[in-house]
Amino acid sequence: MSQATQSFASDNVAPVAPEVLAAIERANAGTVHSYGDDPVTARLQAVAREAFGTGLLIHPVATGTAANALALACLAPPHGAIYCHEQAHVNSDECGAPEFYTAGAKLIGLPSPDGKIAASQLLAPLAHAQEMGVHHVQPAAVSISQATEWGTVYSPAELAALAAAAHGAGLGLHMDGARLANALVHRGCTPAEGTWKAGVDVLAFGGTKNGALAAEAVIFFEPGKAAAFERRRKRAGQLWSKMRYLSAQLLALLEDGLWLRHARNANGLATQLAAGLVRQGLQLAQPVQANEVFAHFPAELSASLRARGFEFYDWPGPPEATVPLVRLVTRYDQRAEQVDALLAAIRGA
Amino acid sequence: MSQATQSFASDNVAPVAPEVLAAIERANAGTVHSYGDDPVTARLQAVAREAFGTGLLIHPVATGTAANALALACLAPPHGAIYCHEQAHVNSDECGAPEFYTAGAKLIGLPSPDGKIAASQLLAPLAHAQEMGVHHVQPAAVSISQATEWGTVYSPAELAALAAAAHGAGLGLHMDGARLANALVHRGCTPAEGTWKAGVDVLAFGGTKNGALAAEAVIFFEPGKAAAFERRRKRAGQLWSKMRYLSAQLLALLEDGLWLRHARNANGLATQLAAGLVRQGLQLAQPVQANEVFAHFPAELSASLRARGFEFYDWPGPPEATVPLVRLVTRYDQRAEQVDALLAAIRGA
Amino acid sequence: MSQATQSFASDNVAPVAPEVLAAIERANAGTVHSYGDDPVTARLQAVAREAFGTGLLIHPVATGTAANALALACLAPPHGAIYCHEQAHVNSDECGAPEFYTAGAKLIGLPSPDGKIAASQLLAPLAHAQEMGVHHVQPAAVSISQATEWGTVYSPAELAALAAAAHGAGLGLHMDGARLANALVHRGCTPAEGTWKAGVDVLAFGGTKNGALAAEAVIFFEPGKAAAFERRRKRAGQLWSKMRYLSAQLLALLEDGLWLRHARNANGLATQLAAGLVRQGLQLAQPVQANEVFAHFPAELSASLRARGFEFYDWPGPPEATVPLVRLVTRYDQRAEQVDALLAAIRGA
Amino acid sequence: MSQATQSFASDNVAPVAPEVLAAIERANAGTVHSYGDDPVTARLQAVAREAFGTGLLIHPVATGTAANALALACLAPPHGAIYCHEQAHVNSDECGAPEFYTAGAKLIGLPSPDGKIAASQLLAPLAHAQEMGVHHVQPAAVSISQATEWGTVYSPAELAALAAAAHGAGLGLHMDGARLANALVHRGCTPAEGTWKAGVDVLAFGGTKNGALAAEAVIFFEPGKAAAFERRRKRAGQLWSKMRYLSAQLLALLEDGLWLRHARNANGLATQLAAGLVRQGLQLAQPVQANEVFAHFPAELSASLRARGFEFYDWPGPPEATVPLVRLVTRYDQRAEQVDALLAAIRGA
Repeated sequence: MSQATQSFASDNVAPVAPEVLAAIERANAGTVHSYGDDPVTARLQAVAREAFGTGLLIHPVATGTAANALALACLAPPHGAIYCHEQAHVNSDECGAPEFYTAGAKLIGLPSPDGKIAASQLLAPLAHAQEMGVHHVQPAAVSISQATEWGTVYSPAELAALAAAAHGAGLGLHMDGARLANALVHRGCTPAEGTWKAGVDVLAFGGTKNGALAAEAVIFFEPGKAAAFERRRKRAGQLWSKMRYLSAQLLALLEDGLWLRHARNANGLATQLAAGLVRQGLQLAQPVQANEVFAHFPAELSASLRARGFEFYDWPGPPEATVPLVRLVTRYDQRAEQVDALLAAIRGA
Repeated sequence: MSQATQSFASDNVAPVAPEVLAAIERANAGTVHSYGDDPVTARLQAVAREAFGTGLLIHPVATGTAANALALACLAPPHGAIYCHEQAHVNSDECGAPEFYTAGAKLIGLPSPDGKIAASQLLAPLAHAQEMGVHHVQPAAVSISQATEWGTVYSPAELAALAAAAHGAGLGLHMDGARLANALVHRGCTPAEGTWKAGVDVLAFGGTKNGALAAEAVIFFEPGKAAAFERRRKRAGQLWSKMRYLSAQLLALLEDGLWLRHARNANGLATQLAAGLVRQGLQLAQPVQANEVFAHFPAELSASLRARGFEFYDWPGPPEATVPLVRLVTRYDQRAEQVDALLAAIRGA
Repeated sequence: MSQATQSFASDNVAPVAPEVLAAIERANAGTVHSYGDDPVTARLQAVAREAFGTGLLIHPVATGTAANALALACLAPPHGAIYCHEQAHVNSDECGAPEFYTAGAKLIGLPSPDGKIAASQLLAPLAHAQEMGVHHVQPAAVSISQATEWGTVYSPAELAALAAAAHGAGLGLHMDGARLANALVHRGCTPAEGTWKAGVDVLAFGGTKNGALAAEAVIFFEPGKAAAFERRRKRAGQLWSKMRYLSAQLLALLEDGLWLRHARNANGLATQLAAGLVRQGLQLAQPVQANEVFAHFPAELSASLRARGFEFYDWPGPPEATVPLVRLVTRYDQRAEQVDALLAAIRGA
Repeated sequence: MSQATQSFASDNVAPVAPEVLAAIERANAGTVHSYGDDPVTARLQAVAREAFGTGLLIHPVATGTAANALALACLAPPHGAIYCHEQAHVNSDECGAPEFYTAGAKLIGLPSPDGKIAASQLLAPLAHAQEMGVHHVQPAAVSISQATEWGTVYSPAELAALAAAAHGAGLGLHMDGARLANALVHRGCTPAEGTWKAGVDVLAFGGTKNGALAAEAVIFFEPGKAAAFERRRKRAGQLWSKMRYLSAQLLALLEDGLWLRHARNANGLATQLAAGLVRQGLQLAQPVQANEVFAHFPAELSASLRARGFEFYDWPGPPEATVPLVRLVTRYDQRAEQVDALLAAIRGA
């Protein structure tokens, strides 16, 4: 266990936000019907509709992997193709969860240096699929991460272009929004503008990285895409009998905009950290648009910082890079002093 | 939402036990490594070994459906057969979760009036499978519920006979222990005697029905059966990044025997309720050995009780029954007065 | 290898009909486009439409297991329920093929003494599923065998009642027609009357048991149910590159009614055999309506016949039967003398 | 339908070799036991052992897609990773068959200009998987095509290096041998040297592209890898009841070395064709080592040839290529005059 003040390893090393814990405690009174037929879950549905300004369906689950994989299983048949960035979390870090939930759909990874995929990148693969007919899996969905795995953020215009390309070819658009709040805060746009108004059909809404205990949700903006979601969730063991405790966490984040305040804090610290690194002559590998900083650290620097208790991950960089790459993540629960302490340690090293 | 005091619908309408909530709060300090590399999870492993008196592996998940299905997927290949009671929860109430997790294994339901299956019931189906060769799914596992779906409890001798029959044919033995504590308390045997000493290979250990927020665990007594469990869990979206909060719940139940005290309370209330029903001339459909009472209630009685706010389920009974069947569940958080109130209402009706 | 003249074991011990082999040879000239874009396959489509008197889609595959499982996968989602007779071939003899192809749907077996299921048997399970909601797999299809595994044949009225019950609940109706020709000949009805006019949505059309080398087909009478069939077939390795040879077999059977002449011969021999058995005082277990005879043979009789080279299977009978059950199958390629020889041997024994 | 003499589209536009058809006819006498318990299948097992000089298991199936996918399902668990060339047939042209048969394993495509993968290419992905732990699918198998999709052929030394790298990391080695005969003929090595002696564990042995009607086989050189193959085959609908006709085809090819004579003819014609193209100043995209010629044809040339009745496929070439790429396939049943006719037409164009 590292010191709370010194970990820049991941958003999910953080504890639960006091407001979220308080909401769990408030929900802990009396008996209620199980499996979501309870007042907390009903209120979550209402609050989520208000936050996104539309008649969505929100379905809580406990992990982001489950949210993504269930969402994709509602978009893609077993013989379907899902286009995503080649380093997308769904493609690289979920041990084949989309393949499991879809019963064998195929993720087709598209390259780009910054984690985003462009609408134009869909043209060639879609034409190829068309030409190959039944020998090729059927194009079914596009999956993007917002913010991306490289800490960058799609603009609403970029999203709209992707959505138009996807919908034009009959594909659904899925967004892995584990860090959606960070993206919205960066772009300064509303939840509606950053999602359904830009064409997103299904959203994996992240809570755990942003202060929850274990709470994510699948949000369907296009109810027609939700076919059979509930049975898929049950069958996956993702339907909590004591649903109120899952709903309470999401409610605490959505009410009063806590999710956005959390993200604003994390984003601000990332900007502070990036600026400090640049001032010390270190090179950033990506623009900092959310709460992740990718920077080139000489190996001795990393070793020195780790010796003092700081935690962060080495990250696979481009083959041509000569200085190793590291990832530094800032969190909802960190403060400016902790970033300053890291910057001071770098100066000292 | 019903009154806390009047629901006999299910164990999972209950709130979280104060000790469990306190444990979550205690875990909520500082940063820790994610995905189970944390001190709470390490301590859970140690405490579980102590509680069961053996070198087991314990893997927390959030729901019983996930625990059962993951356990079965470690025992049965896609082309496997799993023998269970025809009304087993895994066969009837999990929307095909075992089929999903095993990639299509077949549950073969065996009948019996009391929810238990006997070792002798395996003989004919195993001989048939042998004779049919590749045309038949391959016998792979036996799955039992303890306590059963009819509130009855296998004796250690019954378990041992089943285990011997299963192991003799090369099959693993899975126990759905959503109500294991209730069964142990009824039999007065140790966790070891009620599980691995009687031949259980893999246990789905229940927490949620017994005071947790959402916490179950897959316990492997036979580590050789755990092959690839961890990747299956991750791929199913059942691996919590903030694992400490899942482990803390199970720890709170196991430490100091809270799980058994909870079960003792629930079992006692069921016995009290059953005795009261019999005294009023109502007929029980099953012996009461855990925290469930199955009784024949005339339709007018049920209607009258429900009109006063009491909650319980109608239950499918044997076709020959003339008086309808109901299920009444008692819980860790109920008190004798609540049972008395129900009995008084019955008397008044 | 038994003598051709003495096997009553199964339809599929038979060689290929000369007409079928000749059709394969005729197809064996020049190059054609692969994967079904060839004139033989085009002609099959036309001839099948004519034979069934409707605008169907016919898709050849090599085995009956594949035909059934692919058909069911087009009707039932992974979280679906398929209602069938508990001894249906799809449920008992295909090593879980439907579960594999559907990605884990659940077959729910309904009992009956003669292999048929009645429309009324669907009522209770459908009501139960409705009540259980997401905890229960979703009712999706009814699957029947025509002729049944007990050699009995549904009447068009029975089919129509089942179809009405299925369709009324939103379920598709699948017919395993491995022995459809035998059933049609018995009922004296047209292919149309025996299938789509009675409400069948998808038919697994049998060829192998009726004189083909290896040729079955999935026929969709309701094209809306065929969604994605072609990709499912390809992905299952059931799409032949040299499709002309598969199509040629089916064409040879359908043209000039060869399939019905074959079935008439086999049915006639079964009737002859059954009559002979009854004359000798042996008891039939089922009415003989197709090409299978189920009869009670004393163990010494079976042993004696087998010692003389006759082949047939022992069959699991009702537990209360005191005289063992055997199954005798007659074939398209057998002659009356062969049946007489068996009857004579029985007389002699 | 094109003229037999003018198609260079694919190996599978060809008719069945007369020897294969004769073998089917010879097998067509009398009744035999079904599902492979017949003398033809027994002889196939013996002849295959002789041809490969080792105690293998050979299991016939009808298509190459089925052979590959079944083989891979015996090597990789649902949570497994299969490393292959990014353009491998299993990855690109089988509509997700490996994902279907393995229940969701992940194919990880490795790039190379000539369709071969090198042992050294496995190092980085295996190290990455190791580092990622349960978040990454588990390395399970390496799959190669011999000859490759680019008509090139691994040397025994290249195979041995790959096998050593795979086995050293605990992975099985699968070979897609749809054109194995062409590869063996090119290298001048024995079947043993080209497969198991070089470390191949499981071979998809091709027959259809080489003169069969529809016949491939899964050959296990390492019987320990064959676990449950037979149930997987049955459940996939790939087990023919009239197995003798499948076995007869493979037997006809293996006996007397017909498979190698066929490949020698096809390879010779490809060499002849390639030489002719080069003489006319056209550029080859790949060395010609089997029966496929990849060449750059100006668009007008392709159009002119097609107008005269020649058939061949455009092929996706490297993005930097300015002259379009085409693929020309030569076959077991073609003759030198047909290649000369194509070359003459090119000269005339």
